[in-house]
Amino acid sequence: MRITLIGSGNVATHLAAALKNAGHRLVQVYSPNMQNAAMLGYHVGAVAIDSLKDIDSETDIFIIAVKDDAIAEIVPKLSPFKKSIVHTSGAVELQTLLNFTTEAGVFYPLQTFSKTKELNFWDVPICIEGATEEITKQLEELARTISNNVYRVNSAQRKILHLSAVFACNFTNHLYAVSEALLKEHNMSFDMLRPLILETADKIKTHHPAAVQTGPAVRKDEHTMQAHLQMLDGKDELQQIYLLLSQDIIKNSNTGNRDS
Amino acid sequence: MRITLIGSGNVATHLAAALKNAGHRLVQVYSPNMQNAAMLGYHVGAVAIDSLKDIDSETDIFIIAVKDDAIAEIVPKLSPFKKSIVHTSGAVELQTLLNFTTEAGVFYPLQTFSKTKELNFWDVPICIEGATEEITKQLEELARTISNNVYRVNSAQRKILHLSAVFACNFTNHLYAVSEALLKEHNMSFDMLRPLILETADKIKTHHPAAVQTGPAVRKDEHTMQAHLQMLDGKDELQQIYLLLSQDIIKNSNTGNRDS
Repeated sequence: MRITLIGSGNVATHLAAALKNAGHRLVQVYSPNMQNAAMLGYHVGAVAIDSLKDIDSETDIFIIAVKDDAIAEIVPKLSPFKKSIVHTSGAVELQTLLNFTTEAGVFYPLQTFSKTKELNFWDVPICIEGATEEITKQLEELARTISNNVYRVNSAQRKILHLSAVFACNFTNHLYAVSEALLKEHNMSFDMLRPLILETADKIKTHHPAAVQTGPAVRKDEHTMQAHLQMLDGKDELQQIYLLLSQDIIKNSNTGNRDS
Repeated sequence: MRITLIGSGNVATHLAAALKNAGHRLVQVYSPNMQNAAMLGYHVGAVAIDSLKDIDSETDIFIIAVKDDAIAEIVPKLSPFKKSIVHTSGAVELQTLLNFTTEAGVFYPLQTFSKTKELNFWDVPICIEGATEEITKQLEELARTISNNVYRVNSAQRKILHLSAVFACNFTNHLYAVSEALLKEHNMSFDMLRPLILETADKIKTHHPAAVQTGPAVRKDEHTMQAHLQMLDGKDELQQIYLLLSQDIIKNSNTGNRDS
């Protein structure tokens, strides 16, 4: 397929590389920052542009991978070309595109992307939604050229997925950062914790996380929890995070399931 | 070495297997529950006992792997044998053993263990502390027969390590459980999130977590954060966790470092 990519950030960069490797033709890469557009364009053999006025109509699909807030501004500038327009966001409804075009879809890769971290795109779940069955099928076909995990997910489900991903990925990564900072403060290396972090994630390949919860909270070890809170004296936010997460672990170990 | 293991839980089980595989002789395994002692004893060729009165004095070291609170009760029953006594806890000071014996040490494997999840013990960091240089060296030697990551860590440092591990492992695993519950509530499979969780952990092999933070909070995407909080309406604890962690991510992305 001939693909035009709107954006040059983390998602755009990884998606462009995967699409290029799958044999698709990247026609143009747009970024308001010409240097960013040129860098990505160079890597995937696409023409770099920094103005949407320079869009080439000879393409099959526009893939928008920009900040959520910018999507609605960009779509009306692409809709006159009468080609499929998809966004890659977990949080934006299909309706945002449908306000401007009928050939709308969503192509949401459920993964955390950093430009400096390579990954195997074949494992990335891609969540597809199309305004019509035809578009859905077109997107599914495209997705299957770069991933083994292609799902049909509607806008309501996608929002829940995105929210779940914030807990499982963004918050988790922040807890890694908290632990690194604690170690650094006491002149210890984060290397000591890396095997633990990897094993914690590895466990959920085969186990339900609630079934393999470990630590003082699930053991209801009040003595250790009190000692930890004292060690966090003066770090108000970390104390609050410690308390809240410990209480939630205790609550869920009692009920055996998640409720409000 | 001839080793007597006090305990038959997650840590005892994995440690016993690693020590056995390294060619050590497991003399006895103690548990107040004979069935548990017998099960582990069978696997590692040790005599199972359910009373400390049956301790065999023909051993080189007692390794205590029981709940933190039980350690101080057990040590005075082992100290008359005049052999090295070590515990495996992150949170208990060496002093707890020194109250009863001079041949005391700590042998703390910094990992999350579940009986049903195999792991490669060579990667497990083992944190060593001895009452004397002689004991420290003995423990280091023993640790190096089962792990490539052996560290000398004093009691104060070990407590910080343990606290950091609660953030990086226990709390992280709970966030996985939260995300699975959210997906389940909306009839979606946790399988969709597994690649994301693995990649999030994989990233920190080579990156500092704070440097690869992604998601709405670090982007200061107020719109998405508000939408997420609304989706959590009625789930008070999850709303609080969402708010607190998001605020902490924003704060740390502003200052660039962790402070109180």
